[in-house]
Amino acid sequence: MSEPSAKKARTTPPYTLVYWPTLPGRGEFVRLVLEATATPYTDICNGPKPDHGPVMDALNSDTNPAFAPPLLKVAGEGKDGAELVLYQTPNILLYLGEKLGLAGSEEGDKWAVNAYALTALDLNNEAHDTHHPIANILYYEDQKEEALKKAKNVREIRIPKFFSFFERVLKSNEKAGQGKHLVGEKLTYADTTLWHVLNGLQHAFPKEIEARKPDYPLLFDTFYPAVEEQEHLKRYLASERRLPYGQGIFRHYPELDRQ
Amino acid sequence: MSEPSAKKARTTPPYTLVYWPTLPGRGEFVRLVLEATATPYTDICNGPKPDHGPVMDALNSDTNPAFAPPLLKVAGEGKDGAELVLYQTPNILLYLGEKLGLAGSEEGDKWAVNAYALTALDLNNEAHDTHHPIANILYYEDQKEEALKKAKNVREIRIPKFFSFFERVLKSNEKAGQGKHLVGEKLTYADTTLWHVLNGLQHAFPKEIEARKPDYPLLFDTFYPAVEEQEHLKRYLASERRLPYGQGIFRHYPELDRQ
Repeated sequence: MSEPSAKKARTTPPYTLVYWPTLPGRGEFVRLVLEATATPYTDICNGPKPDHGPVMDALNSDTNPAFAPPLLKVAGEGKDGAELVLYQTPNILLYLGEKLGLAGSEEGDKWAVNAYALTALDLNNEAHDTHHPIANILYYEDQKEEALKKAKNVREIRIPKFFSFFERVLKSNEKAGQGKHLVGEKLTYADTTLWHVLNGLQHAFPKEIEARKPDYPLLFDTFYPAVEEQEHLKRYLASERRLPYGQGIFRHYPELDRQ
Repeated sequence: MSEPSAKKARTTPPYTLVYWPTLPGRGEFVRLVLEATATPYTDICNGPKPDHGPVMDALNSDTNPAFAPPLLKVAGEGKDGAELVLYQTPNILLYLGEKLGLAGSEEGDKWAVNAYALTALDLNNEAHDTHHPIANILYYEDQKEEALKKAKNVREIRIPKFFSFFERVLKSNEKAGQGKHLVGEKLTYADTTLWHVLNGLQHAFPKEIEARKPDYPLLFDTFYPAVEEQEHLKRYLASERRLPYGQGIFRHYPELDRQ
């Protein structure tokens, strides 16, 4: 009796990510946690053909209402062995962080990991708003004038504020983390989340970030390369599963970068 | 030997909230959870005189770096009996929700509670951005033109999208929650968080919300009054501890409301 389910466990990963296809987007924060731990998962919208269907189905569900993707479905972990359906990026990270050992080693670590991941996600949102400061549903071109003002504020005020904060966090944890980790002495989902935001910002604002890097040596000389050199992440980042930036959160409009 | 600490437990509450004084702000989401459970706490910046000092000290700390308030300090719950310092609103809610019994009754509930609280906080952020779409550090008057556009989008597109989502959540949980609770059959921090956002939106956009209420009967006829009638919350909301809205997240600028 146990053979079929054991077989199923080997061939069907319990984790299914539901996120808009062809883009890293907010789904990427979930992918990085799964990839860093070499955890099998199905990226359901990025099959042989890009498929928006699973996102639309999830958003229209009347039993597990979700406001926006990403969602994570976990086979067998819901009530009475049903599928557990999680949504909201920080919520999914929290769940996977605990399950996959990316929430820190000591009991109290998980609160710091969660706080820093939430802060990195706040910066992610601000990066998005540089090109869409007025309305999601309007084209960039229809809010370009406002985007120029917003991007100037984010580049000149917000980015340095976030970077100097994270530099201080790395410094405060330098004894354990050696500048490579925000919390404790090993990789957490706060690290993977911040890493992706830093990567995206370099795509969106290459000149601005290049000019600011020297002010944050732990962040850019130690932390950033350490995360991308992690064994599984290195392999993932070189693979086709790592999707290119496009018309998502991090966009390169040269006019929004430092001139 | 146990008398002094028992005495201390009675006279010094373990919870200290650190948030800008005189405003509900993001500190209010934390206050509501503490108040709903009649949990003693010290609102350190709102003593006899408003005091910004504890916020500034917390933001400048090199041992527990925090990007922004609110923070929650919990005596004795950190490593080796030290103070535990939590920051990021959703992180504090998650911690208190579990400690104080506001994270749902069943094991899986906590993920839904967290997701809905995060979604209500997203709406809270969008409400803030209606009057500060370009930069936090500029006055409203210096971004008023952009604020008029942003507020129109939030009022006409975003608010209905969020309201219809939460109406669907209440409907999906109607059997257990009777329209009074987003998850399960009793109050959670998702309920208190959403309630405050609805309260704030009615302060900021009274005409807009009044016009839209009839479209969301569970949300406004059942859920909203049920939360504010909860025994402890009712007493709190009538007290001086409930601070008036001012120059915070929810501001009433008549020109940003429906005309």
